[in-house]
Amino acid sequence: MKEYFKGIPEVKYEGKDSINPFAFKFYDAKRVIDGKSMEEHLKFAMSWWHTMTATGTDPFGAGTIDRNYGQTESMEIARAKVDAAFELMKKLGIKYFCFHDVDIVPEGKDLKETKENLSVIVDYIEEKMKGTDIKLLWGTANCFSSPRYMHGAGTSCNADSFSYAASQIKNAIDATIQLGGSGYVFWGGREGYETLLNTDMGFELDNMARLMKMAVKYARKKGFNGDFYIEPKPKEPTKHQYDFDAATVIGFLRKYDLMDDFKLNIEANHATLAGHTFPHELAVARINGVFGSVDANQGDSLLGWDTDQFPTDVKDATLSMLEIIKAGGFINGGLNFDAKVRRPSFTFEDIVYGYISGMDTFALGLIKAYEVIEDGRIDEFIEKRYASYESGIGKRILNDEVTLEELEAYTLENKERPMESGRQEYLETILNQILYK
Amino acid sequence: MKEYFKGIPEVKYEGKDSINPFAFKFYDAKRVIDGKSMEEHLKFAMSWWHTMTATGTDPFGAGTIDRNYGQTESMEIARAKVDAAFELMKKLGIKYFCFHDVDIVPEGKDLKETKENLSVIVDYIEEKMKGTDIKLLWGTANCFSSPRYMHGAGTSCNADSFSYAASQIKNAIDATIQLGGSGYVFWGGREGYETLLNTDMGFELDNMARLMKMAVKYARKKGFNGDFYIEPKPKEPTKHQYDFDAATVIGFLRKYDLMDDFKLNIEANHATLAGHTFPHELAVARINGVFGSVDANQGDSLLGWDTDQFPTDVKDATLSMLEIIKAGGFINGGLNFDAKVRRPSFTFEDIVYGYISGMDTFALGLIKAYEVIEDGRIDEFIEKRYASYESGIGKRILNDEVTLEELEAYTLENKERPMESGRQEYLETILNQILYK
Amino acid sequence: MKEYFKGIPEVKYEGKDSINPFAFKFYDAKRVIDGKSMEEHLKFAMSWWHTMTATGTDPFGAGTIDRNYGQTESMEIARAKVDAAFELMKKLGIKYFCFHDVDIVPEGKDLKETKENLSVIVDYIEEKMKGTDIKLLWGTANCFSSPRYMHGAGTSCNADSFSYAASQIKNAIDATIQLGGSGYVFWGGREGYETLLNTDMGFELDNMARLMKMAVKYARKKGFNGDFYIEPKPKEPTKHQYDFDAATVIGFLRKYDLMDDFKLNIEANHATLAGHTFPHELAVARINGVFGSVDANQGDSLLGWDTDQFPTDVKDATLSMLEIIKAGGFINGGLNFDAKVRRPSFTFEDIVYGYISGMDTFALGLIKAYEVIEDGRIDEFIEKRYASYESGIGKRILNDEVTLEELEAYTLENKERPMESGRQEYLETILNQILYK
Amino acid sequence: MKEYFKGIPEVKYEGKDSINPFAFKFYDAKRVIDGKSMEEHLKFAMSWWHTMTATGTDPFGAGTIDRNYGQTESMEIARAKVDAAFELMKKLGIKYFCFHDVDIVPEGKDLKETKENLSVIVDYIEEKMKGTDIKLLWGTANCFSSPRYMHGAGTSCNADSFSYAASQIKNAIDATIQLGGSGYVFWGGREGYETLLNTDMGFELDNMARLMKMAVKYARKKGFNGDFYIEPKPKEPTKHQYDFDAATVIGFLRKYDLMDDFKLNIEANHATLAGHTFPHELAVARINGVFGSVDANQGDSLLGWDTDQFPTDVKDATLSMLEIIKAGGFINGGLNFDAKVRRPSFTFEDIVYGYISGMDTFALGLIKAYEVIEDGRIDEFIEKRYASYESGIGKRILNDEVTLEELEAYTLENKERPMESGRQEYLETILNQILYK
Repeated sequence: MKEYFKGIPEVKYEGKDSINPFAFKFYDAKRVIDGKSMEEHLKFAMSWWHTMTATGTDPFGAGTIDRNYGQTESMEIARAKVDAAFELMKKLGIKYFCFHDVDIVPEGKDLKETKENLSVIVDYIEEKMKGTDIKLLWGTANCFSSPRYMHGAGTSCNADSFSYAASQIKNAIDATIQLGGSGYVFWGGREGYETLLNTDMGFELDNMARLMKMAVKYARKKGFNGDFYIEPKPKEPTKHQYDFDAATVIGFLRKYDLMDDFKLNIEANHATLAGHTFPHELAVARINGVFGSVDANQGDSLLGWDTDQFPTDVKDATLSMLEIIKAGGFINGGLNFDAKVRRPSFTFEDIVYGYISGMDTFALGLIKAYEVIEDGRIDEFIEKRYASYESGIGKRILNDEVTLEELEAYTLENKERPMESGRQEYLETILNQILYK
Repeated sequence: MKEYFKGIPEVKYEGKDSINPFAFKFYDAKRVIDGKSMEEHLKFAMSWWHTMTATGTDPFGAGTIDRNYGQTESMEIARAKVDAAFELMKKLGIKYFCFHDVDIVPEGKDLKETKENLSVIVDYIEEKMKGTDIKLLWGTANCFSSPRYMHGAGTSCNADSFSYAASQIKNAIDATIQLGGSGYVFWGGREGYETLLNTDMGFELDNMARLMKMAVKYARKKGFNGDFYIEPKPKEPTKHQYDFDAATVIGFLRKYDLMDDFKLNIEANHATLAGHTFPHELAVARINGVFGSVDANQGDSLLGWDTDQFPTDVKDATLSMLEIIKAGGFINGGLNFDAKVRRPSFTFEDIVYGYISGMDTFALGLIKAYEVIEDGRIDEFIEKRYASYESGIGKRILNDEVTLEELEAYTLENKERPMESGRQEYLETILNQILYK
Repeated sequence: MKEYFKGIPEVKYEGKDSINPFAFKFYDAKRVIDGKSMEEHLKFAMSWWHTMTATGTDPFGAGTIDRNYGQTESMEIARAKVDAAFELMKKLGIKYFCFHDVDIVPEGKDLKETKENLSVIVDYIEEKMKGTDIKLLWGTANCFSSPRYMHGAGTSCNADSFSYAASQIKNAIDATIQLGGSGYVFWGGREGYETLLNTDMGFELDNMARLMKMAVKYARKKGFNGDFYIEPKPKEPTKHQYDFDAATVIGFLRKYDLMDDFKLNIEANHATLAGHTFPHELAVARINGVFGSVDANQGDSLLGWDTDQFPTDVKDATLSMLEIIKAGGFINGGLNFDAKVRRPSFTFEDIVYGYISGMDTFALGLIKAYEVIEDGRIDEFIEKRYASYESGIGKRILNDEVTLEELEAYTLENKERPMESGRQEYLETILNQILYK
Repeated sequence: MKEYFKGIPEVKYEGKDSINPFAFKFYDAKRVIDGKSMEEHLKFAMSWWHTMTATGTDPFGAGTIDRNYGQTESMEIARAKVDAAFELMKKLGIKYFCFHDVDIVPEGKDLKETKENLSVIVDYIEEKMKGTDIKLLWGTANCFSSPRYMHGAGTSCNADSFSYAASQIKNAIDATIQLGGSGYVFWGGREGYETLLNTDMGFELDNMARLMKMAVKYARKKGFNGDFYIEPKPKEPTKHQYDFDAATVIGFLRKYDLMDDFKLNIEANHATLAGHTFPHELAVARINGVFGSVDANQGDSLLGWDTDQFPTDVKDATLSMLEIIKAGGFINGGLNFDAKVRRPSFTFEDIVYGYISGMDTFALGLIKAYEVIEDGRIDEFIEKRYASYESGIGKRILNDEVTLEELEAYTLENKERPMESGRQEYLETILNQILYK
């Protein structure tokens, strides 16, 4: 068996004092926290696109990363990529992966050829999975890169583009089912507009819903009982993306009666591009009952595009893991690293460092989240804060027993109870104490 | 009768060559466009808070504008303010106004006193309206400035703050009904959070919906058949405001079954703070059937707070009027200038210049919007753009007659029809041609 | 002679009522304003990279525009591109062009081959220019796209990358001189950092200055007496670009004693990415005596990356032309359209529409700027605003005749003269009146 | 002696496991690191304005914090505020403070009265300081809040406003000298513009430099040998502030020959508003030899205004302390908390929590910064990264011995040395390892 990531050993937990660059300092896969191992809690997944396929190109420069895996012919590259991917997952101890159709196969000259390519490689992956504990987290179709999607896929003004997208989605669903995936993602990379001057937004959104309904119908018929996900993003590549943020997507799901089949795949960097924190987006999904899966990464708060960096912010990871725990943890979903190394980090080593960085960050996030819970001071504060609703007028409000008139009468007759501080600064000292102790 | 805006004549239309600073160059109130006069189309309204009340204070400086109207006692100031407001509306030819409770009266030492103050001044305004054609566009209650709302009003952790807000809303609804207002607005200035560390977002949103339902129930019982509006804003004063943008609010209305009673009051500067254009937010409201009213103003795209400038961008006004026309125009709503002069523009003249600027801008917007419609090139382009859905596979997609399998079969069998250009640059030349001819 | 832009006629001025899409509505090249024709004032230039070379690729999608000009071999494409470029400039009536080395030639396998390619094509362009009135506005070297510049060019940690950049710059200067260019531009696409964790910023900036000094020395020796330009940009592709904005670059030029040879090439979209308006950046250059040239385009104020759209904002163009006129107009510089069509605008027609859009916008900007000057109200306002410095204490301040003690004595003894309004709203009505009359 | 912060004990170091909210978990004032105690390294200062004076008002709401200290008369409040301030500093173990003139005294009806007020309170503070080890870090004059500064102070169009500012500055310098302050700050709150339509930017900047020169001349004559500081801020309250960022201010200092007397006071939240990181701004100051002092606080990366939160980000504090250490540490400057509690945190306890939060955060920053230095991996990486300049062509570049021609010859003759990875991900794992171990 050829080794692709030469010189890179299996990455193991060595603890916080190790200076071995190829060791986890915090992620101890088998360590049990609250009855589950860290790897069960975190369900880390590898993203095929950034990890195995992306070349480091950017709008001002050529690629820096060699992605040919020693091959020259495109299907050979695809096959070698599978081998390399499984080698990498094994070395990192990652048990899940995610892919778009065109990450794993070269696009053919037409749909037929692409479909054949897909069939070959999906079989190859299926074979490869045997005897391993590596699973497919979710699959998807790339309906945004081809020029045929320049005006959108489900929202295209060209019915043939819509049809082509539908075909790709069908095949990607088939591949997902064949590989035992528990999720299927819609990320609407071109579902949006460049200018309202040429766009009928209502028409396009109706069509987007149509495509999703067809996909659900097809997949359920084929026996898929995993989750469908929409992944919100506010902009980029289009000026306005229809799936702007969690709240927008949930409104869409309600309007088109899709709440039963869809959940959300929340990406950290998309959250911040939309003007939200990652924990906020997770909380919005949670309180609406549609938390599903996570694309973990990190943006740069001073840059206005999707930088997709490996997550390094432990505080953010902690607050995110708290939300995920409150939402019941990952069921069909998991924590996919939709993250890439910086363009000047062009070696295989850098990819491994990136994953170590992200995995250790979320391992810390998990540990610290449980420490916050165990510490109890923050939860207790929140609980007490709303105590005025546990009795008297507050309770009657919650029970929908009062009217404006009665509330006015109450207010005229009673002295207001004093305001209490929100204690943000105090709560932040608690959080930092837990993070750094 | 005392004159407050001394030296300022009635502002009349003098046409585009006038150099009279106190004349409209574009707004010709009685000019008929498409069967309605400009004033009927535009339904301009004066905002009591910025126009009559705000002093020009900002976080780094004291007020610059004298708002005492020659009086020293607070109720006398309130009365003089009414006189001055009606003088200003008359001089500007504005037929509508909007207010918060505490814009028109001083807050008393308790709810009772405030309520009495309100009663006196609302009677005074009612009296003042007689014999004029000035109407109330909408009323609202300020449930955000008082320290009692530091944690929110409908979303407060303190049930007494909730009750106080309910009381204010009741009285503001009464005042709105007494003055014949056709709308009642909810702007959730403190309905949001500063930090998730002390917040139960789900609890708070449920309560916010409760308060709105009570308000609807009360007002309908009292015979109010106007519209309720939510005014989206993403942030400021709180870190995260629950009514983030149009899509978020619509999702909220759907979740809590409030779509029948509520429409949206869209503010331009709030749109841009949320990462959207003003026309986009109008379009979102329109395609969901909840377009209601407008807070016209303008932000500074390089500044991250609500600058509430008088609108001067004619292109934006044109595209916005196009959306408003498509939505059927203003019914109960109107075009309220939620705009204020810059702090160094501290004279009464400046307020008048501000209104002239805003009214001329939207007059141009209206004129140019109808020129765009009459020109027809843009509308025709959009219509043709989706032609592939008028027959064949496209029509079957719209009719919900196809499945993924059939679309795949279609795609495998047919050559894709060629892509056509989105023609953004061409459409922009048309728009500019109309704007500048 | 092969025609590349088939079906596209010479674009002529037909006036504001023409509905010919291939006509200027506002740009009348020979119309004289203030003693100079519009084309002399505006000195429009075509950018080789966006116009002839860019394929419409973006970070999420493949190119949509065919740039092979009917050829398959790279040097034949380069030659055809020259022919097509001159055809386009002729059809648009554009008299200047700008290029990077690798826009006009394919990169060879090494510097030697690239240099030979450059020699061939520069000769070909030189030949092509004969008998036309088309001139080179400025040339430059692309020292950012190649992987060898992943860590910067002048600021690279790799001395060989520095040397390679120096070589490219030498050859680009030679090409600029051969083609009679009046300017040479430095845009530091990778001169910046991704993270301070691996960067010695002081070292890198010293080296950047070294490279510029070498370039000046070489070009002056070779007889170049045009201007060197730095083009500021704050971010993208790197996280932090050293040439952040006009003020930063001017500080750099002062520190390294480069003010005599360098001016600024101000790009509109880079200005807004830096948090400034385009007119602001022009004004900063002007008051420091380093206004040079312009990259005209337009960003999207809601998007955080360089969208490089063709300019359509006439107000912005007017305010910019006012600054340019105040700075003395273009001497060696000109108005280069560093602008590209949107990805879904993939036809040759779209490129022509884009240029028409930009040229008409700046034609209007020029016309309106002179109308503002002729109108005089704004200039007069500014002049009067500072009148308190024309005599008394104000004059003594300007003459550097006073001390803090004397100013205190003056203040203690004199009543403050009253504040006057800044009249922003009034000035904006004047501007809009001129724009839309 | 009256106790103002009742129930709040002296805050002492109790270590990371303490759950006493009024204890430091990380700041151990007397602990020696690299030969200096933590308090000597950090030189924490209290800001009079936020801490003792600000009421929690915001643009949408009234104040929430009582700042009368049990008094009703303004000079009595001022005196009580001094007592309270010293009590607070004592309880927190803070040895420095900073103030604006109008933080410590009420503005009188004219300059004379304000001056008298200042004289009284400065004497009172001087007296209060005796027998303590509390020192003045720096003083300043508030030349932005009064309506007289609506058009700026040094940049005002009204020469009398300029004069008034000069007078205030004189008196604030006198106060600074009397209290033994080692710094004097210029923060140009209104030195900027609202619109270029009414502004002569060149004129205004010349005047701003004049005012600074007068201040230097006066203070040096009076024996002040501390540092003058400019504090950069890009916007807010004005649309554009002239002291945009560190690079802009340094360019200004060079232009007007003020580099010898001025250093920079870098504020974290101002850095991020300008599109920079706090460490970046510190690095820019350092490499230009003008690092001076720090206003420590924290913005919200999703909000576009100066939130002035107490710093809680340990990673940012670590990277900032690394820059400060590289710059030689604080000499005349110190670490002033230009930070305020959130509006709903309205109690004295909250202020104490805020300071504990900020002081613990920077204590950790200091500890971690030295751990980074001791660890050595990051510094070593940077040093090796530029190794190609230590010999051969690299060394000749640094020695200014080469020309473009020679570099081209070198490049043509030599194979490029291979690129090496920038290793951002690896360096981030090291940083996180140190932060969380």
